[in-house]
Amino acid sequence: MDIERIINNIKDNQPLIHNITNYVTTNDVANMILAIGASPIMADEVLEVEDITSIAQGLNLNLGTINQNRFKAIKKSGLTANQYHIPVLLDPVGIGASKLRQQYVHELIDHIQFDVIRGNISEIRALYQNTSTKGVDANYIDTITPDNILEVVSYIKEIAKMFHCIIAVSSAIDIVANEDKAYVIYNGHPMMSRITGSGCMLSGLCTAFISTNKDHMLDACALAFICNGIAGEMAYDKMIERHSGNATYRNDLIDAIYLMTPQNIKERAHYEIY
Amino acid sequence: MDIERIINNIKDNQPLIHNITNYVTTNDVANMILAIGASPIMADEVLEVEDITSIAQGLNLNLGTINQNRFKAIKKSGLTANQYHIPVLLDPVGIGASKLRQQYVHELIDHIQFDVIRGNISEIRALYQNTSTKGVDANYIDTITPDNILEVVSYIKEIAKMFHCIIAVSSAIDIVANEDKAYVIYNGHPMMSRITGSGCMLSGLCTAFISTNKDHMLDACALAFICNGIAGEMAYDKMIERHSGNATYRNDLIDAIYLMTPQNIKERAHYEIY
Amino acid sequence: MDIERIINNIKDNQPLIHNITNYVTTNDVANMILAIGASPIMADEVLEVEDITSIAQGLNLNLGTINQNRFKAIKKSGLTANQYHIPVLLDPVGIGASKLRQQYVHELIDHIQFDVIRGNISEIRALYQNTSTKGVDANYIDTITPDNILEVVSYIKEIAKMFHCIIAVSSAIDIVANEDKAYVIYNGHPMMSRITGSGCMLSGLCTAFISTNKDHMLDACALAFICNGIAGEMAYDKMIERHSGNATYRNDLIDAIYLMTPQNIKERAHYEIY
Repeated sequence: MDIERIINNIKDNQPLIHNITNYVTTNDVANMILAIGASPIMADEVLEVEDITSIAQGLNLNLGTINQNRFKAIKKSGLTANQYHIPVLLDPVGIGASKLRQQYVHELIDHIQFDVIRGNISEIRALYQNTSTKGVDANYIDTITPDNILEVVSYIKEIAKMFHCIIAVSSAIDIVANEDKAYVIYNGHPMMSRITGSGCMLSGLCTAFISTNKDHMLDACALAFICNGIAGEMAYDKMIERHSGNATYRNDLIDAIYLMTPQNIKERAHYEIY
Repeated sequence: MDIERIINNIKDNQPLIHNITNYVTTNDVANMILAIGASPIMADEVLEVEDITSIAQGLNLNLGTINQNRFKAIKKSGLTANQYHIPVLLDPVGIGASKLRQQYVHELIDHIQFDVIRGNISEIRALYQNTSTKGVDANYIDTITPDNILEVVSYIKEIAKMFHCIIAVSSAIDIVANEDKAYVIYNGHPMMSRITGSGCMLSGLCTAFISTNKDHMLDACALAFICNGIAGEMAYDKMIERHSGNATYRNDLIDAIYLMTPQNIKERAHYEIY
Repeated sequence: MDIERIINNIKDNQPLIHNITNYVTTNDVANMILAIGASPIMADEVLEVEDITSIAQGLNLNLGTINQNRFKAIKKSGLTANQYHIPVLLDPVGIGASKLRQQYVHELIDHIQFDVIRGNISEIRALYQNTSTKGVDANYIDTITPDNILEVVSYIKEIAKMFHCIIAVSSAIDIVANEDKAYVIYNGHPMMSRITGSGCMLSGLCTAFISTNKDHMLDACALAFICNGIAGEMAYDKMIERHSGNATYRNDLIDAIYLMTPQNIKERAHYEIY
């Protein structure tokens, strides 16, 4: 993985990232995308998303606080991204929480070719369980640990093969895989689950990373996870030092991405390739 | 009031709190709910709220930035919460600011049995003024002071009796009461009115407190107010120490809830029972 | 410019500012308005905006994340503001990014008399390019520098004359002008473009400034820009001192407005009048 090249491709090109995302975490997503040196635009009116997506270099689609109107915009944007060969990521937030979200996600997958689907392990499992054919029975998996890592890697590669895209899974240990190769990433901190939007911000970051690294998206997406995990660790160091709480942690997490250097990444990156 | 038991019931059970709330303060509400150890979910599409509410342990309904679609979702969620005996709180934000909000609030009250209605004194007064029968004429009251406290306590108990629920009032002095018993709470700081969302965050916090303390909701709701007031005081101490402003104060307020211990509460709680 | 008078007119009157704005930056806009001592209300349902606008002292209309429903509310609010002689500002966010936004902005301009239109230089240029008559050909201008300042001042005065309002332009150097007089403002810092919402917050701030300074709006609007620019410089000083990033910078920017004194303004204001 050529860390400098991937990062510089973002900072030098300042890609415009179109986000259609929930209204809970959208401000944090925008600031995270700015932190890495890309430029966010949010727009979710079906009458204009074709215009917006077509001038963007990446598209980040997020199912949180979904509604009927925003879904129409998401679908149209995704189709536009495919038409213009713009990298597109799906974050199937809370797919397990309602029948509507399952139906929406499957309608998207049937019509749009995603480059990355990013979610937590239970979201990715829900995605897979709702498809008709299942090669691996890993439906019981709800976290990734050193003990089940080989099994989960096979499972994720299987899902990546089925959807012809990168599957990027957040858990105690993260996995970013296509059907051939998996990054298993040990960076990160449990504190990241005590703020809202850590998953949404990571999806925004992944979209920025792949948007200007189209010929090596797996490496770029894995590096987004590594940077995010390191930022979570660095923000936790600050939290302990200052005796602060989760709201300040959120700011320190974004700040850590803003301040991160290739040197930080090289010193702290902790991952394996399977 | 058994402080340890109420707090531990939240932290041990990590209840899922469904929030249908305005788009101004929803990120802060989510982080406040996470700060106390509960888990927020935001969803406001009428087609899915039945699914979402039915898996939650508490429901927080907020009228800020209301629109026609979100109102439909609010009503359906409230009815679902009643059906499954899930504690439900109403925050009638800005009820006095438009005829539409008055109409919406009264439509909710006619169909849904709330466990708590939380607002500032003018919102609670507006709620009461718009009902047809009035036992107490306290329509002139716009703040709660040591001088009018007995009168206001009677007034709030009367409203609690009318609506068969806890009425939780934010003011210079707070009152949390059912028809029999009132907590009068002196914690808090005027700085809390210099940030957006302090009321919305408190409503989220109250919902988390009552969700896992169903057999002693009045105590739990009063304790949420006490914790929030203490957090406001502690955040103000930090603000003076660091010469910071209202944006940092918002973060310090949430942080203070994250860091709060039963010991902090015992040392600083300042309330009376009427 | 009578700095003390303009600022005191806000702090003494605590004007209520009605904002119809995008869901990305609305929390920051609200906290910025609170920072200067005014009071924000957000409401975007067409059925209630007439009620809300009519009790406000200023109206801030923002086209970010526009949708069909919010546009109806924006138009009705603007008409209401005109009817009650309430100062009204338009922020044509991303007018160049979609045909829909161009159409919406022109529909607004045709029906509503704005007091201020505030945008970055490319938004203001797009506004002008889409009108039929053009007296100045400055369509190539994409930043304001010491070299093109005289030319741009003429251009902005021309636009101000055409729309019968103040045109307030954010760029490396800012211009706030009516058809007769232009403030050229050198305060500010490039770091402000590394956070989301710096333009939206400035529009909120301008609305607060003009709302209680109706007989000297140009001075008030220019002073809002000066304060905002100084806040950006002071927040950058803190950022360097603490080695923080863009998320903390956002908070420090709002804090700096909260903490700003007339003395700060007099010491750091850097502007010329043309």
